[in-house]
Amino acid sequence: MIGGGQLARMMVPPAIHLGLRISVLAEGEGMSAARAADAVGDYRDPDTVYAFAETVDVITFDHEHVPGEILREVERRGTPVHPRPDALQFAQDKILMREKLGELGVPIPDWAAVSDESELQTFIDAHGGRAVVKTARGGYDGKGVRVVSDSGEVRDWFAALDEDGNGGRLLVEELVDFTRELSQLVARRPSGETRTWPVVETIQRDGVCAEVLAPAPVADPATLDEAARIGIVVADGVAVTGVLAVEMFETRDGRVLVNELAMRPHNSGHFSIEGSVTSQFEQHLRAVADLPLGATDMTAPAAVMVNVLGGPEEGPMPVRYARVLAEFPGAKVHSYDKLPRPGRKVGHVTVTGADLDTVRAEAVAAARAFD
Amino acid sequence: MIGGGQLARMMVPPAIHLGLRISVLAEGEGMSAARAADAVGDYRDPDTVYAFAETVDVITFDHEHVPGEILREVERRGTPVHPRPDALQFAQDKILMREKLGELGVPIPDWAAVSDESELQTFIDAHGGRAVVKTARGGYDGKGVRVVSDSGEVRDWFAALDEDGNGGRLLVEELVDFTRELSQLVARRPSGETRTWPVVETIQRDGVCAEVLAPAPVADPATLDEAARIGIVVADGVAVTGVLAVEMFETRDGRVLVNELAMRPHNSGHFSIEGSVTSQFEQHLRAVADLPLGATDMTAPAAVMVNVLGGPEEGPMPVRYARVLAEFPGAKVHSYDKLPRPGRKVGHVTVTGADLDTVRAEAVAAARAFD
Repeated sequence: MIGGGQLARMMVPPAIHLGLRISVLAEGEGMSAARAADAVGDYRDPDTVYAFAETVDVITFDHEHVPGEILREVERRGTPVHPRPDALQFAQDKILMREKLGELGVPIPDWAAVSDESELQTFIDAHGGRAVVKTARGGYDGKGVRVVSDSGEVRDWFAALDEDGNGGRLLVEELVDFTRELSQLVARRPSGETRTWPVVETIQRDGVCAEVLAPAPVADPATLDEAARIGIVVADGVAVTGVLAVEMFETRDGRVLVNELAMRPHNSGHFSIEGSVTSQFEQHLRAVADLPLGATDMTAPAAVMVNVLGGPEEGPMPVRYARVLAEFPGAKVHSYDKLPRPGRKVGHVTVTGADLDTVRAEAVAAARAFD
Repeated sequence: MIGGGQLARMMVPPAIHLGLRISVLAEGEGMSAARAADAVGDYRDPDTVYAFAETVDVITFDHEHVPGEILREVERRGTPVHPRPDALQFAQDKILMREKLGELGVPIPDWAAVSDESELQTFIDAHGGRAVVKTARGGYDGKGVRVVSDSGEVRDWFAALDEDGNGGRLLVEELVDFTRELSQLVARRPSGETRTWPVVETIQRDGVCAEVLAPAPVADPATLDEAARIGIVVADGVAVTGVLAVEMFETRDGRVLVNELAMRPHNSGHFSIEGSVTSQFEQHLRAVADLPLGATDMTAPAAVMVNVLGGPEEGPMPVRYARVLAEFPGAKVHSYDKLPRPGRKVGHVTVTGADLDTVRAEAVAAARAFD
């Protein structure tokens, strides 16, 4: 596992139960997955990655930022990499992703790759005077995304574009009139076996995932089918190995449009630790190890996950921990053992049960009790 | 955690989720919990235990074999030990346990502590010509237990008795005419907060736990209440911290008699990893860390756990692993990463669902597929 964040951390429990040995190359000391870290180093340094790769049977990731040329060399030297670099590129570069989704015939917002302010302004003017601009690489949790009405609002990004591998282009997309955001999780083995989880609703605040409702409430069965269909088409189309998260907009006029892809366990799938027979973390490990995939049925009619974000002070998790456990004995509290910073994801809470509204109220209350 | 077996191994996942740091003193290299082992050494060596204790905030166990005098000295030196040695002694010594259960007024089989063959024969003759003889210390999984009709059948045990701390006595008990075996799990915090899980039925083969049915099927509500009552009386009576397993006989005439105690997570509670809102492993950690206990409701109407035992050859888990996962996508397979020996517990399978018979059939088939 390259990357020592909370996704790597949450991969350790299913590795223990499956009897797989997990080894982590962490970015630094004191990372969330530090206890599983057998190596510490920079994933952008080829020799660090090559040396780590020699110690393991297969490489996977808790983020998409390892350069493709390093991963291709790891494969040439004989260590399998999953997802493969040819798949991973579509999660690493949003312009490549949009091109590929277009080829696959998957519904996506109108988009263009633009090289300068003039091209961008033309797109904005043709789409009602506002648009979403994204850097092709490196964005996450709302970073690298701006809603603009004037192309001058991303002048700094154009100035900094030389190194993105896309000929100095930004991605611009129509501002979609969506009613809510959905996420379809899919797992795929190298052999092509796939499994989907029920599509979930994700609720963002300030560009960061705040809540996940599983399954997505009161969804039209046609929407559920379409989300699952898109998930499979994308998973097969890019030949991903492991977990793929397809983030989607549900539009006011009943369509589903693909927003983003992630090729790893994803915040929208944390509910599955308790809420699914096979969690996204276990499934990712099974897929990467080319083991048969597990059942993805819900373990209860409803599961809700709420993120816990760090504040400016010590905690919040250590300080209020015992109080939250006492008040919410049915809530599953997950701590990432991370130093808090304002807005940083430091943990999450999941509640499962028979009724979505009840479950959601409890999960929200438990997470808020950390504030 | 002193002891590096599968119980320590299965404590690691909830420690990760709770954000607790777990450190293991393992008996040797290559133990089941080796990846969490920060130290390797003999738990009977005082200096090894004292040195380990200085590195942690609180000590607990995956077995009951650490000598009480060592643990009392650890407490004197300032590291809390849970369960405390004054509680643990009742799980370490079956004669002390019987005496204590008698004091607590808990129903138990007729018993005696016997010093020689003559005393033993008197007990046998008074109880229908057969009885169960147990060594006071060191038995597990049917070891240290013999059903005898003649006192000469344990002559070797009398000869070896000098060091057991019980004045050279063996425990003898009436042979109970039981219809089945039950196990009541209880967790208790130092503050006295307790939580019980639903009582389960345990099915033994050759003295080793083979299957656990949760909750115990078609049980009389009065029996369930009595099992839970006994569990609480014992937990409070010995002032245990952590998980206590009370193994019981259900008799043909409708009584419940206490057979054995274990003061740690127990094979009869492995179902709770998937089958309970809070697993026995998470609850043990909460109790030992003096954190509020979690809900113990079942996550499904039925959960069945079946042990996987090692055979004479390599495997069985690695060899047949992929086949079992493919055939049983809803079964949760747990591997302990242990070298197989005939009869050794090397893993287990749990299935949860709506109907006990269906769930049991699937769990048994999945576990047998490793044979």
